[in-house]
Amino acid sequence: MERITATYYVETPFNPESAASILAGEQSSGTFVAVPGETEELKHRFAARVELVERLETVREPAIPGAVSVSENYHRAMIRVSWSVENFGYNLPVLISTVQGNLYELRQFTGLKLLDIELPPSFASQYAGPAFGIAGCRQLTGVQDRPLIGTIVKPSIGLSPQQTADLVKTLAEAGIDFVKDDELLGSSANSPFADRVDAVMDVINRHADKTGKKIMYAFNISGEVDDMLHRYEKIVSRGGTCAMISLNSVGISATKKICDQRELAIHGHRNGWGMLTRHPLLGIAFPAYQKLWRLAGVDQIHVNGIQNKFWESDDSVVQSIEACLTPLFGGYSILPVVSSGQWGGQAPETYRRTRTTDLLYMAGGGILAHPMGPAAGVTALQQAWKAAVDGLSVQEAASVYPEFAKSVEKFGGN
Amino acid sequence: MERITATYYVETPFNPESAASILAGEQSSGTFVAVPGETEELKHRFAARVELVERLETVREPAIPGAVSVSENYHRAMIRVSWSVENFGYNLPVLISTVQGNLYELRQFTGLKLLDIELPPSFASQYAGPAFGIAGCRQLTGVQDRPLIGTIVKPSIGLSPQQTADLVKTLAEAGIDFVKDDELLGSSANSPFADRVDAVMDVINRHADKTGKKIMYAFNISGEVDDMLHRYEKIVSRGGTCAMISLNSVGISATKKICDQRELAIHGHRNGWGMLTRHPLLGIAFPAYQKLWRLAGVDQIHVNGIQNKFWESDDSVVQSIEACLTPLFGGYSILPVVSSGQWGGQAPETYRRTRTTDLLYMAGGGILAHPMGPAAGVTALQQAWKAAVDGLSVQEAASVYPEFAKSVEKFGGN
Repeated sequence: MERITATYYVETPFNPESAASILAGEQSSGTFVAVPGETEELKHRFAARVELVERLETVREPAIPGAVSVSENYHRAMIRVSWSVENFGYNLPVLISTVQGNLYELRQFTGLKLLDIELPPSFASQYAGPAFGIAGCRQLTGVQDRPLIGTIVKPSIGLSPQQTADLVKTLAEAGIDFVKDDELLGSSANSPFADRVDAVMDVINRHADKTGKKIMYAFNISGEVDDMLHRYEKIVSRGGTCAMISLNSVGISATKKICDQRELAIHGHRNGWGMLTRHPLLGIAFPAYQKLWRLAGVDQIHVNGIQNKFWESDDSVVQSIEACLTPLFGGYSILPVVSSGQWGGQAPETYRRTRTTDLLYMAGGGILAHPMGPAAGVTALQQAWKAAVDGLSVQEAASVYPEFAKSVEKFGGN
Repeated sequence: MERITATYYVETPFNPESAASILAGEQSSGTFVAVPGETEELKHRFAARVELVERLETVREPAIPGAVSVSENYHRAMIRVSWSVENFGYNLPVLISTVQGNLYELRQFTGLKLLDIELPPSFASQYAGPAFGIAGCRQLTGVQDRPLIGTIVKPSIGLSPQQTADLVKTLAEAGIDFVKDDELLGSSANSPFADRVDAVMDVINRHADKTGKKIMYAFNISGEVDDMLHRYEKIVSRGGTCAMISLNSVGISATKKICDQRELAIHGHRNGWGMLTRHPLLGIAFPAYQKLWRLAGVDQIHVNGIQNKFWESDDSVVQSIEACLTPLFGGYSILPVVSSGQWGGQAPETYRRTRTTDLLYMAGGGILAHPMGPAAGVTALQQAWKAAVDGLSVQEAASVYPEFAKSVEKFGGN
C-alpha cells in the first residue's frame, strides 16, 4: 500500500527515537484503549511508522517553551514518519491535520518543523493540479525566454477604480506583463471590486486590441466562497486572465474550490507566511507548504526575493525557488513569484543561484520611480535579466544598458 | 467611521514607537509612490493608525531571528493599531491579511504576536455568528446546569463503522452526551464516511427513541467544499446534530460556507494551533483567534484543559475559556471544549478558576477505562462536576461519590 512520508526537524529533551515514536503514535492509532475486534493487522495497517531518526546537535536551552520537564540537554534530529494513504484517502485537510496537526502540542518536543512531504504517485490521478502553471502563464501573457515582469498597484489601498486603471494604463504603455492588487485590497469603500475589474479590464482590453499584448492582472478575490466565485466570474466575463487569493487567510478548501474552476490562473499570495516559518524550529518549511498548494491547483506562488526587504535569507529564497521548479509527479508546474525590494539589481545573483528565468519578477519602485519613467523602468528590468542570463555582473550590465544604469544609480545605493 | 483595533505584543531593536509606525504603514497605505489625484484626505481615510505604544521589558537576545541589524537591546512593547472598516468592508480573509498578514515578515521586528482584535458593532449586522452556541448545544443534547460530558472515539483510526457504532452504543448506555471522531479520521479505507454516519446514527436514533436522549456525535466532515457539503447533508438526512471541522486545515472561507447552512452545530477542532501560538512572541493568541471563528459561525471550539497532557499552561487554558465566555456583540456564544488528559479530577480546579459549567468536558480513558465500567465513568464525571460546583476538593468529592473515588484511585496518581 502507498505511503505518505513527512520529514521533520525536531528538538526534544528525550532521546529522539522515543520522541519520534510518540509523534507517530499521537498522529495515528497509537493511543489504544482495548476495543473488541481490534487486531494486530489493523494496528499495522493504520499505524504511522518512524522511517528514520538522524541525530543532530544537542543544545542546552529549549527552542520553544512547554517541555514536559526541565532538562540539561535538548537533542535535535531529523525524523521521517510515514502513513498509509488508506488513513486519509485523498483529502488535503485531513492530510494537513495528520502531518501538521496536534503534534505541535506535544510537550515531548521543544521544537518541531515540517520540512517536506513525499506523496505517492496515485495523488497524480486524484488532483488535477495547476490549470496553467509556468507554460500556461507564459502563453496567457505572451512572454517567452525571460521572466514575466510584474508590479503591484500602490498605494495598497485608497485608489479609486479609475485611478487604478490610469496606473495600469501607464504600466501597459511601459510594457509591463503583469499587475496585481495588494493583499490588503479586496472590495473597499472607494474601490468596489466589480467597478475595479470594469475600469482595469477596459484599459487592458483596449491595450490588447491595439498591441496584441494582454496584460495579466491578478484581482484579489479573497473572501467568502460564494463571493469569490462571483468575483471570479466577473473577471472571466471581462476577459481577465488571473485571480489572486491570500492562501493562508482563505484556507486550502476554499482555494481548491476556486482553482477547480480552471478558467483563470491563480496567483497565490502567502501573506501570513512569516508566522508559519520564521522560527527555525516551529511551523513549516516552504518545500512542504508549496506542494500542498500545487495539489490544490495554485498557478503562481510568492517566494520573496534575493536581497529582499523582509527577514528572509537569500539561501531560503533560493531553496523556495528550487522547490517550486522541482516537478511534482512530473508536472504540477507552479510559477515562483519573486518580490520584495526587487529593482533588477538582484537579477544577476538570482540567476546565478537558480539558473532559471521561469519567474514572475515583481518590482514596485524599480518601475514607477525610474528616473527616465515607467517604460524605462520596465526596459531596465528586461535588460537586467538579459544581462543576468548572459553572465554579466550588475556593473557590466550598467555599462551596456543605459536604462539599467539609471536604475543602478537610483536603487543600487545600499 | 468605525475602526477595527488589533493589539500586538512585539519585540524590536528599534524604538517601539517607530516600529509600530512601520507596521501601520506596511499594513495600509503607507508605502506611497506619488500618484496623481491622491490626496491627504484619502491617505487619512485609509491609513492605519497607531493608537498606543506601551513599553515593556528590554532583552539582550532576539526572540526570533531575521532582525534588520544586530542590536544590543531588543525592546518589548504592547502596541495597538487601528484600521477603518472602509479598508476591508466585511471580509474575514482580507481582515486576516491585514491584522496577521505580511507584518510577521518585517525585519524591524524580532517578535510579533497578535493578542486581540476589537471589532465594531456593525459586524453584528453582517455576521450571523454561531447558529446554536451554548444554549443551542444544550438544547440539542438536553443537558442543563452541568457541563456536557463527551468523549472521542479511540483508536483514532482503524475501527470499522460497525465497531465505531458498537462503541457509541456502549457510551450511549453509559449516559454520554457527546461523542466525536478523531481529527485524523475523515473517510478512511475501512470507515467510509457515509457508512459510519449510517451505523452510528442507527445507534443514536434507536437510543433516542427508547430514552428520549439524543447523543450529539461530531462527524469529521473536513475536506473539500463540495465533499463537506455532501457529508453535511448526509448527517442532516440521518438526524445527526453536529459536524466537526478542523479549522486550521480547512480554512475560514470554507468553514464559514459550512456554518452558513445553519442546520448542524459546528464542532471546531483547532489542531495545528500549537504552531500558531506556542512561541510567546510569534503568531496569534487565542482571544483574537476565537473571535474570528465565532464570526464565521463555529458553535464549539477546543481550549485544551487544566493539567492537560499537552504543552499549554493552566493560565493559558483559563484565559481561553474566559475568552469564549465573553459575549461578542452581546451574543455570538461559543461553547468551550475542554479536553486532553481530562478524567474529572480537574473539574474542581477548572470550576474554581472559571466559575462556569458552560463547557463541553471531554474525557477519553476516564470513561472507557473506568474500573467499574463506562457507565460509572460517565457518572464519575458528572459527580466531579457536581462536587466542583458545590466547592468540594478532589479528596472531599472522593469521600462522597464512590464512582468518582474509583477514578481518583485509577487516574489520580500523578
